[in-house]
Amino acid sequence: VPTPRALAPVEEQLRVLKSGVAELHPRDGLDERLAAAVAEGRPLRVKLGIDPSSSHLTLGHAVVLRKLAQFQRFGHTVVLIIGDFTALVGDPSGRSQTRRQQTESEVAGHARTYLEQVAKVLDVDAAEMRRNAEWLAPMTFADVARLAAHVTVAKLLERDDFRTRYGAGQPISLVEFLYPLMQGMDSVAVRSDVELGGTDQTFNLHVGRDLQRAHGQPGQVVLTMPLLRGIDGVQKMSKSLDNGIYLDEPPEAQYGKLMRIPDELLGEYLRLCTDLDPAEADRLADKAAAGGAGARDVKRRLAREVVALYHGPEAADVAEAAFDTGVRLRAGGGDAGAPAPPLAIPEAAVRDGRVWVVALLAEAGLVGSRGEARRLVAQGAVRLDGRPVDSIERSWPPAELDGRLLTVGRRSPVRLRAPGSRPAS
Amino acid sequence: VPTPRALAPVEEQLRVLKSGVAELHPRDGLDERLAAAVAEGRPLRVKLGIDPSSSHLTLGHAVVLRKLAQFQRFGHTVVLIIGDFTALVGDPSGRSQTRRQQTESEVAGHARTYLEQVAKVLDVDAAEMRRNAEWLAPMTFADVARLAAHVTVAKLLERDDFRTRYGAGQPISLVEFLYPLMQGMDSVAVRSDVELGGTDQTFNLHVGRDLQRAHGQPGQVVLTMPLLRGIDGVQKMSKSLDNGIYLDEPPEAQYGKLMRIPDELLGEYLRLCTDLDPAEADRLADKAAAGGAGARDVKRRLAREVVALYHGPEAADVAEAAFDTGVRLRAGGGDAGAPAPPLAIPEAAVRDGRVWVVALLAEAGLVGSRGEARRLVAQGAVRLDGRPVDSIERSWPPAELDGRLLTVGRRSPVRLRAPGSRPAS
Repeated sequence: VPTPRALAPVEEQLRVLKSGVAELHPRDGLDERLAAAVAEGRPLRVKLGIDPSSSHLTLGHAVVLRKLAQFQRFGHTVVLIIGDFTALVGDPSGRSQTRRQQTESEVAGHARTYLEQVAKVLDVDAAEMRRNAEWLAPMTFADVARLAAHVTVAKLLERDDFRTRYGAGQPISLVEFLYPLMQGMDSVAVRSDVELGGTDQTFNLHVGRDLQRAHGQPGQVVLTMPLLRGIDGVQKMSKSLDNGIYLDEPPEAQYGKLMRIPDELLGEYLRLCTDLDPAEADRLADKAAAGGAGARDVKRRLAREVVALYHGPEAADVAEAAFDTGVRLRAGGGDAGAPAPPLAIPEAAVRDGRVWVVALLAEAGLVGSRGEARRLVAQGAVRLDGRPVDSIERSWPPAELDGRLLTVGRRSPVRLRAPGSRPAS
Repeated sequence: VPTPRALAPVEEQLRVLKSGVAELHPRDGLDERLAAAVAEGRPLRVKLGIDPSSSHLTLGHAVVLRKLAQFQRFGHTVVLIIGDFTALVGDPSGRSQTRRQQTESEVAGHARTYLEQVAKVLDVDAAEMRRNAEWLAPMTFADVARLAAHVTVAKLLERDDFRTRYGAGQPISLVEFLYPLMQGMDSVAVRSDVELGGTDQTFNLHVGRDLQRAHGQPGQVVLTMPLLRGIDGVQKMSKSLDNGIYLDEPPEAQYGKLMRIPDELLGEYLRLCTDLDPAEADRLADKAAAGGAGARDVKRRLAREVVALYHGPEAADVAEAAFDTGVRLRAGGGDAGAPAPPLAIPEAAVRDGRVWVVALLAEAGLVGSRGEARRLVAQGAVRLDGRPVDSIERSWPPAELDGRLLTVGRRSPVRLRAPGSRPAS
């Protein structure tokens, strides 16, 4: 995680923070807040509500988290609201069905897993972390009623998902109408200057702004990010649609999925999923738009950039090599009609007892002789999970090698399997 | 208030309790509950929610209260819920606009005035009186959410007034959607067997039934009474429409208004506003339907019955006499086209110093001589506000007479005015 650049000029901050944004309300709100923050020498309070009902984060979730990280790198205060109270009730945002309520222990477990993944993008330790049960749990029926008096039924039914479901005759539980109030009350409690979310959160973010004003606070700036489309190129990336790329997936899986996205998504992915400077992302997107080999090169660049963000540059190397092998296998395969899985990596069994690197290379059939093995290790051409093996004396217990990827230069990698281990499906 | 007839047979109870009812749900629910109550030797718990936001009760309010009194006379337990919590939030039922919230002291004051009027119909002391803040005030946001999960938005929007307002683009505050939950929770808290209300309460009563079932209780029987039309014969009797007859209005005002209702309302008023046996009410309604002098006689009977219920039979006599005078004045008036107010009663000034009944009658011009005055008082023909003056020795301070109605036999009454008092407009 990069270090803060607290004193960056407002112009520079705006150039970065506004890139890729879907909606900013009011239009000049961020400019004004930033100018005021700089003048007062105080950081902005930038809120993100986290729904711990889903704990498997995709690149789609990361779009908003990366925007938040930009605020953080400029020295602003990120306020993460764990919706522990909200999740006990059920969060219907952008969903087509009433969500079941979760137990307290489910919520706690999900929040833990969620934050581990958030830490891949944000400096979680530097963020202000709040649980909204802190202020929502003590609220009484009368407090809720006073809050509810600020919102009309018609306005709630204008929210896209509610309108769609109401129109389709699908049930909307009244409890779902209370959820935007809870989320809005969070903004009042933490006095946020800006709230971030996907465009499916626009309505809820505006409720927060309204409730802050009803409580005598300045209304927060609403900043929404586009919803990333999944690898099918059609629908929003989502666990339930099985079109997602997950932050905690292995490098090769991420790489392979990214290479499979339709070309027309390249611009959107470059701008929303990488740390590339906005100008560079635009240049690459233009290049991809021309199609052909250029588009393919851009896609490889995208895949490397994304994998490097979540697993480091070496893992990106390995993933690229694994992908190339898969592609080569498919291109050279006997049955051209059969869609060979591009991520199928040959496995090599590791023998029992301590395993010496030179013996391993020979037995895996990756070298012609033990002498070649010694030479290649000495040259730094032998890598385990993308990291060079630093000495020809290296050895490991078999369990430590299980599942790891062994590569020699640009040759096809092999997946190592310890004795008695269950091969991956 | 008549004494309970706890052991009346179920058939007799049903004949009375079902008379005039608009809806009974489930259809056999009351039969079953009554049979069970008789078998178990326990009274039914019959709930009425009272909205203390309006403290001026009309004959329309009394329709439901009279039905409740019937249950009470059969020995059942009337449970009156003072909606003190509800009123702090605002009760939108059957209203065309969002109602303002009331302060606690407004609510308390209204409830007091309300119960004084309820006491004209019910034995308030025998009723179980509960304030719903008792169980609603301690409820938390999470409790509210759990409750809200039992109701859908679509179902709420089916409620007549909500549908109308939503369709007309009039705002419905979300807090109004919480109101049926509060009222329903009342049924859970008091474990009601039956809940009464006007037909505009049907939806809320069903929510109570649903919530009881969701809480593992038998669902209450929903018993609704028709909404009484006002003296305009068109719209529901309501304070805001100025078409109401009030329980605390003077006898002559009630009498005069009742004589002005359109003939087609006679059946409905006979059945819903009097204590006449259902069979007798039907007979009179048939007679009225023939029109002419018969309808007029029935209307006089109705007016007498109603005034007698709220002010006693003597006051009904006075009111009838006052009305006849007004009518006679109008019939004999020089300008037949001018609508003389039928309730205009001639006033008689009372002189200063203690006032002796015999002198009063003479000075008011109601008798030809002091001898005639003595004789009429001795015969019991002289009444003050409908109550016979019991002795020819009676005298009063002038202030005590101010505004009271003095009648002699069937002659026109006069309104007494003390020196310095402001005549009624």
